[in-house]
Amino acid sequence: MHAITIPEPGGPEALVWDEVPDPVPGEGEVLVEVAAGAVNRADILQRQGFYDPPPGASPYPGLECSGRIVALGPGASGWAVGDEVCALLAGGGYAEKVAVPAGQLLPVPEGVDLVRAAALPEVTCTVWSNVFMVSHLRPGETLLVHGGSSGIGTMAIQLAKAVGARVAVTAGTKEKLDRCAELGADILIDYREQDFVAELKAATGGAGADVILDNMGAQYLDRNVRALAVNGRLAIIGMQGGVKGELNIGALLAKRAAISATSLRARPLSEKTAIVAAVREHVWPLIEGGHVRPVVDREIPLPDAAAAHRIVEESGHVGKVLLVRP
Amino acid sequence: MHAITIPEPGGPEALVWDEVPDPVPGEGEVLVEVAAGAVNRADILQRQGFYDPPPGASPYPGLECSGRIVALGPGASGWAVGDEVCALLAGGGYAEKVAVPAGQLLPVPEGVDLVRAAALPEVTCTVWSNVFMVSHLRPGETLLVHGGSSGIGTMAIQLAKAVGARVAVTAGTKEKLDRCAELGADILIDYREQDFVAELKAATGGAGADVILDNMGAQYLDRNVRALAVNGRLAIIGMQGGVKGELNIGALLAKRAAISATSLRARPLSEKTAIVAAVREHVWPLIEGGHVRPVVDREIPLPDAAAAHRIVEESGHVGKVLLVRP
Repeated sequence: MHAITIPEPGGPEALVWDEVPDPVPGEGEVLVEVAAGAVNRADILQRQGFYDPPPGASPYPGLECSGRIVALGPGASGWAVGDEVCALLAGGGYAEKVAVPAGQLLPVPEGVDLVRAAALPEVTCTVWSNVFMVSHLRPGETLLVHGGSSGIGTMAIQLAKAVGARVAVTAGTKEKLDRCAELGADILIDYREQDFVAELKAATGGAGADVILDNMGAQYLDRNVRALAVNGRLAIIGMQGGVKGELNIGALLAKRAAISATSLRARPLSEKTAIVAAVREHVWPLIEGGHVRPVVDREIPLPDAAAAHRIVEESGHVGKVLLVRP
Repeated sequence: MHAITIPEPGGPEALVWDEVPDPVPGEGEVLVEVAAGAVNRADILQRQGFYDPPPGASPYPGLECSGRIVALGPGASGWAVGDEVCALLAGGGYAEKVAVPAGQLLPVPEGVDLVRAAALPEVTCTVWSNVFMVSHLRPGETLLVHGGSSGIGTMAIQLAKAVGARVAVTAGTKEKLDRCAELGADILIDYREQDFVAELKAATGGAGADVILDNMGAQYLDRNVRALAVNGRLAIIGMQGGVKGELNIGALLAKRAAISATSLRARPLSEKTAIVAAVREHVWPLIEGGHVRPVVDREIPLPDAAAAHRIVEESGHVGKVLLVRP
C-alpha cells in the first residue's frame, strides 16, 4: 500500500507519500481500507519530531479515519468485512489501509457520508471524554471553548448546545466567530481584541464558566482559573501556549474548582474502548437525529498531506481538514 | 454565655474569653449547648486576621463542636431537645452555645463519648468529601497523605484503610510516623530526611499515588504532580506552603491527572448538608463498628484556647486538640 511517511522530521515537506508494507491486523484488530483521514495538531508535532507514536502504534501519522473493513484479525468480533466504519487510531491514518483494535471502531452514522465520517472520531471522543465524562457539563451550565472554530471547538459547541448548556467561544477573527454562532454559540469573544475573562464575566452576570475546554495550556492558565465559576472545571487538552505556568491555588481553592489534563492518544485500549462506547451511546444518536454534524473545512488528496498541514498550521480553517484516499 | 472572642487579630493571646450575647437559632437551625470544640488551622488564620468568617457566620472562631440540643429554631426538623450531637460549623464553636443549621448536625456515634465526638465533624467531612466524593479513592489504590499525624491525616489513614486502599504518609518525626503506622499507614516517609517523590515511587514499583491529600499548596505542587500515578488525583485542602506555584501542565497531561482545591467552610448550606449526609451514611457505620476512631491529642479547657493554638502552631500534636467547656 501507500502511506504518508516521515523519513526525517521537519516542515510540511517532510511528509512523503511512499510505498510501504500492508499492515497486518493483530489479535482483536480489523483491517480498514481507508476512505479518508483527518488532520490533528498532534500529527504536526509528530511530523516535527516532538511526538513519537506510542509503543506498538503505526509509525505513520493519522489519529482517525473512515473506511471499509477488509479483513478481521484473530478474535476480532462485533464487525464484518464490508462494514463502513470510522475509527480512533493510535497512528497510521495517513495510509491506504490501517489495522485498528475493534474497540476503537464506530459505525458510520446514518446521514453522514463515508468520507466526512473521518471528521468525527477524534473530536467526538475528545469532547465527550473531557467535557462530559471528566468535567460533567450539565444542562443550564456555561461552557467556555477556546478555539471555537477548530475541529474540537465546532463539535464542543454543538454537543454542549444539544444537552442544554450555554456556550461561550473564543476565536481570532469575526468570520470564525460567525461560524461559531451558526453552530449555536451564545457568547462570542474575539481573543485578539477582547479580554476573555472580562467578556465572559460580563456575559454571565459575574459568574464565569462552569467548564472550560482549553487548548492553550500555560499561556491561559491564570486567566482560565479567573474565568472559572464556583465549582468550575478546567479541562486542558492542548498546550499550544506552553507547558509550565503559574497556578494560583488560592483562587482555585476559593472557587472549589478543579483542573484536569488529558490526551486521547496515550490512553490504553481499555480506556479508549470505554470512551468510544460512550460516544456511540450518547453522541451517535445526536448525529443521526440531525442535532450535531461533522464540520469539514475542506477535503485534500492524501498524497498532498503537506498542503493540509500548512492550512492547519496557519489556522486558516474552520472545522476539520480531511485527507481523502486517491 | 461566654465565648472566645478576638478583639484584635494577633498571636494566641488575642483569644479572649468574654461574656457575649447568646446566639438565637434562625430558620432551620438548632441551638447546641457545647460540650467541646476542636482546633483547626483555619481558626489560627482567623485569629491572625487572615480569614474572616463567611457572611452570616458567628464572629467567634470554631468550625466544629459536640454538645446537646437545647432549643429548636423555626422549621428545624429531624432533631429534638436533649439530642447529643456533633456539628460542622461556619464559626462559633469556641463558645458555650452555638446555633447550627440542622443539616450540619450528626448524631454522636455509638461508642464515642460526647466530648471526643468534637474531634469528628471537620476531619470526617473534609476527608470524605475530598478523598472519596471528589477524588474517588478506590479499593486497591494508593493514597498519599501529607501531614499524616494531623487531625485530617489520622482520619484519612483510617478511612482509606477501611475501604481497602494502601496508604502512604509524610510526617516530620519518627514518633509521628509511628503513630501513623499504628493507625494502619503502609508507607512511612519522613519529609525532613527523605524525598517523598522518590520514596513513594520506590514503594509503589514506580507507579506513584492514585490520590494525594495535600495541605501544603504551592510548596509541594510540582512534587505532588511528579508523585501522582497515571489517572491520579491531587486534592489540595490547605496552602501552608504558599498560594502560587508553577504547574507543569505537560506532566499533568502525560498522566491524565487532575487537581482539585476545596475548603469546607465556604461551601453553601446545600453542599455542607450533602457532605454531612454522605458522612453519616458511609463514615458513621465505620466508627460505630470500631474500624475508625477519633484521634485526640489532648483536651484543654476552652478558656485556655490560646494554649491549644500554641500547640497546633508548633505542630506538637497528633490528631485533634479539643477545647472542653468548663
